[in-house]
Amino acid sequence: MFLGRVVGTVWATKKDHKLEGLKFQIVKKVDQELNLKPDFAIAVDSVGAGAGELVLCAAGSSARMTPITQDKPVDTVIMAIVDQVDFDQP
Amino acid sequence: MFLGRVVGTVWATKKDHKLEGLKFQIVKKVDQELNLKPDFAIAVDSVGAGAGELVLCAAGSSARMTPITQDKPVDTVIMAIVDQVDFDQP
Amino acid sequence: MFLGRVVGTVWATKKDHKLEGLKFQIVKKVDQELNLKPDFAIAVDSVGAGAGELVLCAAGSSARMTPITQDKPVDTVIMAIVDQVDFDQP
Amino acid sequence: MFLGRVVGTVWATKKDHKLEGLKFQIVKKVDQELNLKPDFAIAVDSVGAGAGELVLCAAGSSARMTPITQDKPVDTVIMAIVDQVDFDQP
Amino acid sequence: MFLGRVVGTVWATKKDHKLEGLKFQIVKKVDQELNLKPDFAIAVDSVGAGAGELVLCAAGSSARMTPITQDKPVDTVIMAIVDQVDFDQP
Repeated sequence: MFLGRVVGTVWATKKDHKLEGLKFQIVKKVDQELNLKPDFAIAVDSVGAGAGELVLCAAGSSARMTPITQDKPVDTVIMAIVDQVDFDQP
Repeated sequence: MFLGRVVGTVWATKKDHKLEGLKFQIVKKVDQELNLKPDFAIAVDSVGAGAGELVLCAAGSSARMTPITQDKPVDTVIMAIVDQVDFDQP
Repeated sequence: MFLGRVVGTVWATKKDHKLEGLKFQIVKKVDQELNLKPDFAIAVDSVGAGAGELVLCAAGSSARMTPITQDKPVDTVIMAIVDQVDFDQP
Repeated sequence: MFLGRVVGTVWATKKDHKLEGLKFQIVKKVDQELNLKPDFAIAVDSVGAGAGELVLCAAGSSARMTPITQDKPVDTVIMAIVDQVDFDQP
Repeated sequence: MFLGRVVGTVWATKKDHKLEGLKFQIVKKVDQELNLKPDFAIAVDSVGAGAGELVLCAAGSSARMTPITQDKPVDTVIMAIVDQVDFDQP
């Protein structure tokens, strides 16, 4: 999984019918200091993550293992909102 | 998923029989300013995306979760046409 | 999917028994001008692609969605021979 | 699979219900000298790996092939604790 | 698939129970001249590949399509020992 921050939203009216009602969030990966990296992915939100929140994302077929993404053309899902990140080593 | 723009089309007569009738679009990823990046992928269009349109693509096994790509040798699908992209953070 | 050109062949006698009879082609990705990039992948040919031909490849589990690759340890397949590539935008 | 070292932990209270009870470890890939690389992934621990331990991780759908990750939105799992790494060639 | 050379072995006593008896080989990718690249992956050997041998590896879910890796947390498998590599183009 990767650690990222919600930095925006994508809106799409014309889409595969299974995607109706899903929210597409823009997630930027973060580094060890939780600073934003330049690259971003679009992820379906399954846990109510809001703008600016630190989240965990699962990618690939595992992104379809939540109740709202099952069997849908979704390859990245936000499946947790992060409370705390502890690095033991610098 | 990744955000991209349709920049061309690939034509292939000789192909796996399951691919008959599918349209292969060339999609370039875009950056935060929606400028084209150099890399491109070939994606099957499942939503009628035309040249120049901003689209969402799903990759991997999730690309087979649309009615027209199911069980086919397709690893990237255009599954939404993007209306708007909102970045909350620069 | 990615666009590539067949640039060689790999021969292997000792292999998983499901791979008997499959042809392993070396495929280099191409850029927008159809020039070869340095990286290459090994792909099973499902459409009779010959040396020098421009092809489309599917990767991941989708590579197993052709009649000759089904349920086999194959992660990249040539599933179309490309006739023409049209870029709308430079 | 990739070789990495456990360098921290991620805590998340609000998450997909299937993720209850799982431990999210931060794993940095290591190079041939077992030095940490800068990039990290978040992996579910299936073998009781502790801080600083050298581990093997499986990614993608294979990450769901352990008893505790089955059918869950998990794309990376620690599935072995490494005792020894032998390089035959420099 | 990717072309690589076996350059070492990883030993792990504490692991997922499905992994008992599997051999974890360290495989470095090779370039067109069959020289080693710096990056390496850990792959389960399904064909008796020894140290220094040139091999083909399948990654992702396809790595589970051999008799000894089926349904196991394994994402890379050595599924062929390479006899010869022929490049038609430089």
